[in-house]
Amino acid sequence: MKLVLPILFLLFASTLHAAEAPPLQRAELGDLRLESGEMLRGASIAYRTAGTLNADRSNVILFPTWFTGTAEQLFTFDAVALVDTSRFFLIAVDALANGESTSPSNSQQQPGLEFPAVTIADMVNAQHRLLTDVLGVSHLHAVIGISMGGMQTFEWVTAYPDFMDKAVSIVGSPRLAPYDLLVWNTQLAALELAERCECQEEAALEVAGLLNQLAMQTPQFLAREFPREKVDALVQQGRAGGAAMNIHDRAAQLRAMLAHDVSRSFGGAIQRAAEVVRADLLVVTSVQDRAVSPAPALAFATLVGAELMELQNDCGHTALFCEPEETRTEIAGFLTRP
Amino acid sequence: MKLVLPILFLLFASTLHAAEAPPLQRAELGDLRLESGEMLRGASIAYRTAGTLNADRSNVILFPTWFTGTAEQLFTFDAVALVDTSRFFLIAVDALANGESTSPSNSQQQPGLEFPAVTIADMVNAQHRLLTDVLGVSHLHAVIGISMGGMQTFEWVTAYPDFMDKAVSIVGSPRLAPYDLLVWNTQLAALELAERCECQEEAALEVAGLLNQLAMQTPQFLAREFPREKVDALVQQGRAGGAAMNIHDRAAQLRAMLAHDVSRSFGGAIQRAAEVVRADLLVVTSVQDRAVSPAPALAFATLVGAELMELQNDCGHTALFCEPEETRTEIAGFLTRP
Repeated sequence: MKLVLPILFLLFASTLHAAEAPPLQRAELGDLRLESGEMLRGASIAYRTAGTLNADRSNVILFPTWFTGTAEQLFTFDAVALVDTSRFFLIAVDALANGESTSPSNSQQQPGLEFPAVTIADMVNAQHRLLTDVLGVSHLHAVIGISMGGMQTFEWVTAYPDFMDKAVSIVGSPRLAPYDLLVWNTQLAALELAERCECQEEAALEVAGLLNQLAMQTPQFLAREFPREKVDALVQQGRAGGAAMNIHDRAAQLRAMLAHDVSRSFGGAIQRAAEVVRADLLVVTSVQDRAVSPAPALAFATLVGAELMELQNDCGHTALFCEPEETRTEIAGFLTRP
Repeated sequence: MKLVLPILFLLFASTLHAAEAPPLQRAELGDLRLESGEMLRGASIAYRTAGTLNADRSNVILFPTWFTGTAEQLFTFDAVALVDTSRFFLIAVDALANGESTSPSNSQQQPGLEFPAVTIADMVNAQHRLLTDVLGVSHLHAVIGISMGGMQTFEWVTAYPDFMDKAVSIVGSPRLAPYDLLVWNTQLAALELAERCECQEEAALEVAGLLNQLAMQTPQFLAREFPREKVDALVQQGRAGGAAMNIHDRAAQLRAMLAHDVSRSFGGAIQRAAEVVRADLLVVTSVQDRAVSPAPALAFATLVGAELMELQNDCGHTALFCEPEETRTEIAGFLTRP
């Protein structure tokens, strides 16, 4: 299994085996009322499926996307290998604002800066509509997500606690830690600069790309993989990754992560949010993660009595890549256990 | 003793006792030939002194400045408390390009983008000129520096190995580690954006300010000192710190740090650079430093058989602040030992 996140695609392109993604499907949800009260016009959700839905529709696993990720990437980067599709029916779903589902970059009615702010809860509510109204799925075997997908997982188990049997958050968070807020506010500041500053839009995006690369890394990992003389190439990769971004989509997802807090519906009390969880929960964290700090996920796991897998390697937010077999075995066991 | 770095001035302003700095002195060095071969026109070095020079001029300690720092700050932040001025004659010297010595912001002949690139070696060569040609000092008891000051210390002991008895580098480096190169290239990219993009210069500087704040921190420190609801204030502080910067001075110092490598004069062989060191060397590092990685300093220390003090706290690049008494005691002992 090759399990990699986008940034590592750049770093380890040669080690990737590219998998083919199943075809894009699309559900039209019409106008969606957002958490803010604003309306998202003509909302459309993109998704891709694998495996076979069984007769009583009891084998569905939902896999929402990471920050800037698409359902297609979940397949091409083989993240879906975490799920045994000979047994489960996998629905990989594109988050709102990610460029495949309705987004600032593709909305006809609310393009660019006119796109209303969406939240992690809005992403989850749209997925709930997709499942119940379009696909006729009223219960999930599991939700599983990585990074921003893990944030959606925490939202799912607190907003729709009876909707799934199991849930897996991998380097996700019930709400960002102080350090994470500083990291992502910094990247947002670079993007907002690009949004306002047409003279140097690409250069501002390159800064955001470098920031993203930085957030994924640890000094130990870089020292091992990138001797000083190769760092220029890494810097160029970070710049190029940034230049390829859609500013508004990326900024919209960043704002969603920054506002994310599963305790918001519980008067800010994380304990009360934890009390509603019914799903069996597996929380996977990376001890040196500097993009999504493990502390809030670990604290939440303790409150709900969740299973824990704490990755101890020095790969930072991309820890999964460094222990793919161990992680896959643990998650496969968790998902199939009666 | 309150020993703090600029960023912590923002965080712990209330705990600071402001010390008075001795008056600014200035030495005119005329035109300086730089390492690049270019000429720096009308070079002027600013410095401040404390203590009394003894009759045989044998009690001089040179203290160059950190990134964006001034000799004045070494006093107002009380970093100079590391040196006993009842015994030593302290010369705190402003680095080239820092705003007090000749800099893009104050040069009449080569202002702003016309200012030639300077290196850490150029800073050290100018200080050597100041000492030998202006102050009549032909030997130092010690050189001591923090961060970029520590980089100048490594340059001093390899470029002028017989010029001092002792040297102390605190969170400095003989050359930046791969992670550091990524950190500082990212900040430089933000500054270069501001240099080119007049429409949003302040916003670009704010991004650089946030980046600097981020590089100083660890997740653990922030989680302890800044609950989520206070992070907005921290973000505003980072932005304000950036907005107060002079772009060109800051970019010039960043480029100097990025190019810094004491092995350059030794065909890239760090072992050969280490072999020329004559001074007793004390290397102070911070295990969780994400601005200047400890690894290159530790490796160099091993090569020269230097004394080591590895700060284990979770304060990152500002580790000194969290163990001021322990550090001061160690350094005072090292400086006074026969």
